[in-house]
Amino acid sequence: MDNVTIIAVASIITAGITTGIGSMMPALGEGRAVAKALESIAQQPDAAPTITRTLFVGLAMIESTAIYCFVLSMILIFANPFWNHFIA
Amino acid sequence: MDNVTIIAVASIITAGITTGIGSMMPALGEGRAVAKALESIAQQPDAAPTITRTLFVGLAMIESTAIYCFVLSMILIFANPFWNHFIA
Amino acid sequence: MDNVTIIAVASIITAGITTGIGSMMPALGEGRAVAKALESIAQQPDAAPTITRTLFVGLAMIESTAIYCFVLSMILIFANPFWNHFIA
Amino acid sequence: MDNVTIIAVASIITAGITTGIGSMMPALGEGRAVAKALESIAQQPDAAPTITRTLFVGLAMIESTAIYCFVLSMILIFANPFWNHFIA
Amino acid sequence: MDNVTIIAVASIITAGITTGIGSMMPALGEGRAVAKALESIAQQPDAAPTITRTLFVGLAMIESTAIYCFVLSMILIFANPFWNHFIA
Amino acid sequence: MDNVTIIAVASIITAGITTGIGSMMPALGEGRAVAKALESIAQQPDAAPTITRTLFVGLAMIESTAIYCFVLSMILIFANPFWNHFIA
Amino acid sequence: MDNVTIIAVASIITAGITTGIGSMMPALGEGRAVAKALESIAQQPDAAPTITRTLFVGLAMIESTAIYCFVLSMILIFANPFWNHFIA
Amino acid sequence: MDNVTIIAVASIITAGITTGIGSMMPALGEGRAVAKALESIAQQPDAAPTITRTLFVGLAMIESTAIYCFVLSMILIFANPFWNHFIA
Amino acid sequence: MDNVTIIAVASIITAGITTGIGSMMPALGEGRAVAKALESIAQQPDAAPTITRTLFVGLAMIESTAIYCFVLSMILIFANPFWNHFIA
Amino acid sequence: MDNVTIIAVASIITAGITTGIGSMMPALGEGRAVAKALESIAQQPDAAPTITRTLFVGLAMIESTAIYCFVLSMILIFANPFWNHFIA
Amino acid sequence: MDNVTIIAVASIITAGITTGIGSMMPALGEGRAVAKALESIAQQPDAAPTITRTLFVGLAMIESTAIYCFVLSMILIFANPFWNHFIA
Amino acid sequence: MDNVTIIAVASIITAGITTGIGSMMPALGEGRAVAKALESIAQQPDAAPTITRTLFVGLAMIESTAIYCFVLSMILIFANPFWNHFIA
Amino acid sequence: MDNVTIIAVASIITAGITTGIGSMMPALGEGRAVAKALESIAQQPDAAPTITRTLFVGLAMIESTAIYCFVLSMILIFANPFWNHFIA
Amino acid sequence: MDNVTIIAVASIITAGITTGIGSMMPALGEGRAVAKALESIAQQPDAAPTITRTLFVGLAMIESTAIYCFVLSMILIFANPFWNHFIA
Repeated sequence: MDNVTIIAVASIITAGITTGIGSMMPALGEGRAVAKALESIAQQPDAAPTITRTLFVGLAMIESTAIYCFVLSMILIFANPFWNHFIA
Repeated sequence: MDNVTIIAVASIITAGITTGIGSMMPALGEGRAVAKALESIAQQPDAAPTITRTLFVGLAMIESTAIYCFVLSMILIFANPFWNHFIA
Repeated sequence: MDNVTIIAVASIITAGITTGIGSMMPALGEGRAVAKALESIAQQPDAAPTITRTLFVGLAMIESTAIYCFVLSMILIFANPFWNHFIA
Repeated sequence: MDNVTIIAVASIITAGITTGIGSMMPALGEGRAVAKALESIAQQPDAAPTITRTLFVGLAMIESTAIYCFVLSMILIFANPFWNHFIA
Repeated sequence: MDNVTIIAVASIITAGITTGIGSMMPALGEGRAVAKALESIAQQPDAAPTITRTLFVGLAMIESTAIYCFVLSMILIFANPFWNHFIA
Repeated sequence: MDNVTIIAVASIITAGITTGIGSMMPALGEGRAVAKALESIAQQPDAAPTITRTLFVGLAMIESTAIYCFVLSMILIFANPFWNHFIA
Repeated sequence: MDNVTIIAVASIITAGITTGIGSMMPALGEGRAVAKALESIAQQPDAAPTITRTLFVGLAMIESTAIYCFVLSMILIFANPFWNHFIA
Repeated sequence: MDNVTIIAVASIITAGITTGIGSMMPALGEGRAVAKALESIAQQPDAAPTITRTLFVGLAMIESTAIYCFVLSMILIFANPFWNHFIA
Repeated sequence: MDNVTIIAVASIITAGITTGIGSMMPALGEGRAVAKALESIAQQPDAAPTITRTLFVGLAMIESTAIYCFVLSMILIFANPFWNHFIA
Repeated sequence: MDNVTIIAVASIITAGITTGIGSMMPALGEGRAVAKALESIAQQPDAAPTITRTLFVGLAMIESTAIYCFVLSMILIFANPFWNHFIA
Repeated sequence: MDNVTIIAVASIITAGITTGIGSMMPALGEGRAVAKALESIAQQPDAAPTITRTLFVGLAMIESTAIYCFVLSMILIFANPFWNHFIA
Repeated sequence: MDNVTIIAVASIITAGITTGIGSMMPALGEGRAVAKALESIAQQPDAAPTITRTLFVGLAMIESTAIYCFVLSMILIFANPFWNHFIA
Repeated sequence: MDNVTIIAVASIITAGITTGIGSMMPALGEGRAVAKALESIAQQPDAAPTITRTLFVGLAMIESTAIYCFVLSMILIFANPFWNHFIA
Repeated sequence: MDNVTIIAVASIITAGITTGIGSMMPALGEGRAVAKALESIAQQPDAAPTITRTLFVGLAMIESTAIYCFVLSMILIFANPFWNHFIA
């Protein structure tokens, strides 16, 4: 394996693993938040607007950690400084 | 193994693993959200429309993390920049 | 092992692992959703149609993550672009 | 090991592992669904037909993920395109 | 190790592992279903026939996933197409 | 290691592992079923015959998965077709 | 290592591992069953004979899976057909 | 592999793993916090402003641990002192 | 390493591991049984003799699985047929 | 790999892993603390100032363990005595 | 490494691991038993003598599994038959 | 790798791992303690001073185990006797 | 590595691991026992002397398993018969 | 690597791992004990002195297992008999 191949392989594997494991827990955390939101709406229908609004802000926070991972993977695939260094 | 083979193997394995582990927790999180939605509808049938609407928005958020993984796998298989570099 | 063999072996193993681990959590999540649906029907028989309808939409969402994995495995076995490249 | 042997070994091992791990969680999910069905029937005997019907649809959905794995294993053993390529 | 030995060893190990791990979760799921059945009979003795009937259908579904694994192991030991190919 | 030794070693190890891991979860599932049976008898002594009968049928189902593993181990030790092939 | 040594080592290690992991879950399952039995006796002292009888039958069933492992280990140590083959 | 390649590979893999595992638990912790916030609002709608305010401060604290990991990954990719040393 | 040394090392390691892992779960199961016994005595002091008697029978059953492991370890250390074969 | 490269690689990997695993549990612990704080405010709105104050002190304590890890990583990257020794 | 060294190393490591893992679960089981004893005494102070007596018998049983491991380790260090054989 | 490099690498990796895993559980334990403190204050506002004082003493005890790890890491990086021996 | 070094390394590593893993579960078990003791005292202050006495006896029993590990580590470091044999 | 280096490396790594894993569970156990203490004080403020006293004795017992590990690490770093032997 020459150097360029090694960089490419490392980038491919790391991008996949990062997105894979990085989207596990956000999904679980969002599932828990959504579940509780539904339970709360059923319990107190009058507070539905407040609950829904807080839920969406919370989901955005949680989703952000999954997006960190996805962004990092995209950087490694399409804007990898190490790859650019070796190609250049 | 020559360089092209290595890139191909790494792409195949990473694509599979990423989709595989990346669809575990979304499924579990969605299962929890759906379960709570059903429980909430049974408890407060009048709030069913609000619950169902919130559920679908939540499921879309959760599903999005699984889709990040699937998209990444598709990129690695059908639009892999490293593979294109070595083929070219 | 020549290159074609390596690609074949990686495709076989990845296809199996992806479907194997990718169908674990959807099954568990569906089991939880179905269980809660039955409990909710028993608790509120009048809401059975709403519950059943919501359940089926939810099951379809959860099943979709398992289908991503199965589709990816089928692509790797029957429509593998890397395999086609090396065969050609 | 020549190439044909490698393909055979990979197919055997992958077929076994896929069916093995792929039938773990469906069994657990079905167990949970059946358990809740029995509990619900005991709690509300009048709703038994609705519960039983919903249960069977749910079990079929859950069983489907186990069947994906079993189908994939059968494909790898009896209709393996890579094996056919090397035998031909 | 010549080729025939390798196929034999892979078949033996895979058959054992598949049956071993494939019979773990069905046993656990059946245990849970049986436990709930007994609890439900104690709670509602009049519904015992319905509960018992539903239980047996459910156990059969759960047992089926264990049987997939056992069938696959038997195929690998007594009707292995790869073994037959190398012996022939 | 010559071929006969390899087959023997693989058979010994697989037989042990299969029985070992294959008898873990049945024991746990049976423990749970027995525990619930005792609890149910204490709660509803009049239903003891029905409970005991259902318990024994259920234990037999659960035990069957442990027996699959034990049977497979016995086949590998005393009626191993691969071993017979190499000895012959 | 000559062939006889390999068989001996594999038998020793497999015998130990099989008994070791095979006696974990039966112990846990029996502990759970005994615990529930005691709780049930305290709750319903009049049903003590029925509970005790059911408990012992259940313990025997659970113990049987541990005994499968112990029997297999004894076979591997004292009546190992592969060892006898190589010694002969 | 020459030295520059090694540094690049280590940086790529470490950046991915760090962000991947570092965004797991914050997502889970935020999910729990959001879930409880929704439950609390439903229980005491009058305290919604206090709850929401405390929630956002808490989410910021939790998010900070995920950001430590993301910052470290960015440093390793775009401002890596070891890489600069070897390039220089 | 000559053959006698290998047998000795395998026996030492296996004996230790078997006793080590084999005494984990019995201890946990006994702890659970004893805990429930104490709880039951506190709840129903009049049933203390029955509870204590059942407890001791149960502890003996659970302890038996730990003793299987200890016996096997003693056999491997002090009455190892393979060791005797090689020494002879 | 020469000595300087080894030190650099070890520092990069260790810095990443330390921050990655070191920010897992603080995030989870803070999530639990925040969740309980919200629940407590909803239950006793009058005690909100005391609760909020105690919460922030507690969060600072928990955050401190994550900061230990981040500080260590920064030392390894920007003020590594071993690296300085080899560069000098 | 000559044979005597190998035996010594295997004995040292096995002795440590056996005692280490063998004292984990007894400690946990005893902790659970003691905790329940204290709870029971607080609930029913009059039954304290019976509870304490049963507790000590139970602790002795649980401790026995930890002692099996400790005894085995002492045998391996101070009365190792394999070591004596090689020294002699 | 010469000796000084090995010592440096071992010190770097060990320092990182020790602080990383050593700050996991203290964070979790502190999170639990803080959570309960908040719950207790909400339940009994009058006891807030006693609770807060006990909480801080407890947090200090828990933090001390994290500090052991941090101190050890600092010793390994800045006052390592083995490193000093080899440098001298 | 000569023989004396190997013995020393094995002793160092085993001593550390044994004490490390051997002090995990006792700490957890003691934490549970102490927690329950405090809860019991709060529930029944009059029984505090009996509870405290039973607690200390129980803690001594649990601590004993941690001490087994510590003693074994001290033996391996300061009174190691194998080390003495090789030094002599 | 010469012998002195090996001893140093083994001592460094073992010291770190021992303190790292040895301070996990004490922290968790202390967290649980402190949490229960706070809950108990809130429930029964009059018993605060007894609870606090018992808590501190218990914390000291739990902390002792963490201290065993720290002491062992300090011995390995600053008073290592094997290191002294090789240096001498």
